[in-house]
Amino acid sequence: MARIVMKFGGTSVADTGHIRAAADRVKRARDAGDEVAVVVSAMAGATNQLAAWVGEIGVLPAGSYDDIAADAADRESDVVVATGEQVTCGLMARALQALGLKSRSWLAWQLPIVSDDAHGKARIESIEAKDLLAALAHGEVPVVPGFQGVTRGGRLTTLGRGGSDTSAVALAATLRADRCDIYTDVDGVYTSDPRIVAKARKLDKITYEEMLEMASVGAKVLQTRSVELAMKQGVRLQVRSSFSDGPGTLVVDEDEIVEKAMVSGVAYSRDEAKITLSRVADRPGVAAAVFGPLADANVNVDVIVQNVSADGRTTDLTFTVVKADLDRAVAILEARRKELGFAGLIQDRNVVKVSVIGVGMRSHAGVAQRMFKALAEKGINIQAITTSEIKISVLIAEEYTELAVRALHSAYGLDAD
Amino acid sequence: MARIVMKFGGTSVADTGHIRAAADRVKRARDAGDEVAVVVSAMAGATNQLAAWVGEIGVLPAGSYDDIAADAADRESDVVVATGEQVTCGLMARALQALGLKSRSWLAWQLPIVSDDAHGKARIESIEAKDLLAALAHGEVPVVPGFQGVTRGGRLTTLGRGGSDTSAVALAATLRADRCDIYTDVDGVYTSDPRIVAKARKLDKITYEEMLEMASVGAKVLQTRSVELAMKQGVRLQVRSSFSDGPGTLVVDEDEIVEKAMVSGVAYSRDEAKITLSRVADRPGVAAAVFGPLADANVNVDVIVQNVSADGRTTDLTFTVVKADLDRAVAILEARRKELGFAGLIQDRNVVKVSVIGVGMRSHAGVAQRMFKALAEKGINIQAITTSEIKISVLIAEEYTELAVRALHSAYGLDAD
Repeated sequence: MARIVMKFGGTSVADTGHIRAAADRVKRARDAGDEVAVVVSAMAGATNQLAAWVGEIGVLPAGSYDDIAADAADRESDVVVATGEQVTCGLMARALQALGLKSRSWLAWQLPIVSDDAHGKARIESIEAKDLLAALAHGEVPVVPGFQGVTRGGRLTTLGRGGSDTSAVALAATLRADRCDIYTDVDGVYTSDPRIVAKARKLDKITYEEMLEMASVGAKVLQTRSVELAMKQGVRLQVRSSFSDGPGTLVVDEDEIVEKAMVSGVAYSRDEAKITLSRVADRPGVAAAVFGPLADANVNVDVIVQNVSADGRTTDLTFTVVKADLDRAVAILEARRKELGFAGLIQDRNVVKVSVIGVGMRSHAGVAQRMFKALAEKGINIQAITTSEIKISVLIAEEYTELAVRALHSAYGLDAD
Repeated sequence: MARIVMKFGGTSVADTGHIRAAADRVKRARDAGDEVAVVVSAMAGATNQLAAWVGEIGVLPAGSYDDIAADAADRESDVVVATGEQVTCGLMARALQALGLKSRSWLAWQLPIVSDDAHGKARIESIEAKDLLAALAHGEVPVVPGFQGVTRGGRLTTLGRGGSDTSAVALAATLRADRCDIYTDVDGVYTSDPRIVAKARKLDKITYEEMLEMASVGAKVLQTRSVELAMKQGVRLQVRSSFSDGPGTLVVDEDEIVEKAMVSGVAYSRDEAKITLSRVADRPGVAAAVFGPLADANVNVDVIVQNVSADGRTTDLTFTVVKADLDRAVAILEARRKELGFAGLIQDRNVVKVSVIGVGMRSHAGVAQRMFKALAEKGINIQAITTSEIKISVLIAEEYTELAVRALHSAYGLDAD
């Protein structure tokens, strides 16, 4: 007998038929003797509709848009948007009852699930487990809405997009659950994007760190915050499909994985743009002068490469920002051209970041070398490189994306038979 | 300066454009110096959609449908259905903010609005006014969801269809408001149904008692319970249109109306069916024997006429039930034919109940006589008569509905110039 938190995403509760199917899964787990608590997202599309209505109501009048007014408006948005999960919560509890299970919904304010008061992007501070533990002890299936909380002052909050995964992990931690199963529309985490790599394989297990790196470079299976929280709290996560019965992918601690592959996955992100500043003065403080104003403007800088100075006085500085920030970053830099003293600014949207990820890198040598060799054999030029302990990323021209990802997938022995 | 509760029905908040228009009305009242609390229904159609989803989830399994399981299911229905008003509550508060007003939503559990635990048809027991009075004192516009409450045990409830009017009246009583304005899709209470009587006039004022009689005979402007509560609590109600700026109809105490017309309105109900039992034994206890089993089966009997016995031993007994109950009533009576000892049972769906209503009847003589004369002049046969202190109803063949209503409207001098 295990204690499991089962979380159903928007596509898994898209309509009443899907809700009944999800309830069936819960029943099977109960029949097998497991204790189950359920976390639900809003029906697919519901949150967008609710947010659209909020948008249609319009903005505050000019002059009144101070912090207090903006906060009051955000609070009401949350009142509206939080209804999406409340609907599925009640429907799911009823669907479970219809299968003969004892079940009830527990809304955020009823437990409570206490969050801070950052409306629209709140963070869960604590979940009161007393009522839920009593329910589980009585053989009931409690159903809890994801994505929301209540402030200490008693106002509803939402956690921001994707927050339902985080709710589920927080609940699993609070209940000391044996596992947190995230039901979604993919059946697990793959070695690479199956739309590009036909030979991509579903991973049975992946470590939290790898999952975080996969998420940060564009493999959007789990929300980053939920993985961070799971790692911190030691919650065993499982990504599973609502539409099939396969076992999914377990996201676990490194020491649960005995045979560590050198590389577990190849990911890519098209969301990058490259800026090169040519002939920047090669002296201390220049990097700070360039990146300080960008940081002040909330422009995140990722890969940074500074060439060796050719003439001993100037150098070229290359870095990436997310595409949506490119124009803003260029404007900020151009406004400081004189002060920064660069000769030219070259921007390039046609780049992609390709990464290989694996905790095995820590104990295997030659990982980077194999990557460079594989890309060189395909004639792909590397524009920049950045590494972390378990990840190597390279910036290449966007047109080579598929070629590079497939070549790396083969080079690290990830191809399915 | 007055304190007003403004209640907007489903058609008045049907979409974000209507919500903004309703917010405009609130702003005009605030600009005129009034204190305003707002009560909102769900967007037109929203409650039906939510109820449909609950229906699609299905029923409880056979054998488990005991009171406890049924109650648990009803609780979850309320969790789902209550979201309709929560959405409009948040949107309305935002719309008011967008007009530069200070506003916030107060959900049932936040005040609280305490109800009993009859889920799906709960009754409000009390509304905690402290926070709302403080808000009004600070110039804020509180927005409260109609149609719902929270039990002392902390579960959401709904009041049953039309409950939003009742919520508004209860709130107006709690806040000792000067008036409760019910915004709807008609611009007031008419002397008769304008679809039938072209010369029907909008009434400036009507008494609670008249309004109750109008509602009970088919003029569905206000929910009966809300009028009863307004009468009991002395809340001045106003029925107004969301789509025009006219003054509407005030529903007030009798002593606020100086010139009382003999008859204020002519109403009709097609929702009646007639049953005649012929040659029933004319002895004590027969009426109880007939109507007891019907009452036990929750069949409401309305007009009852017992003819004078012709032969001294048997009589004919005629009465009406609502059409939906007719088949059931007939089955109950036929099953007891021997015991009740009637010779024949005649059922007739082609009847209509036409009523004239007015508190002026108390002080005017000849009201009934004028009614019978007007109908006789048109050759309309009266099948049964029933009266209350302020109402006379007759049962006639359905085909005469329009003719009878128009004739009575003229006969009592109600026609517009």
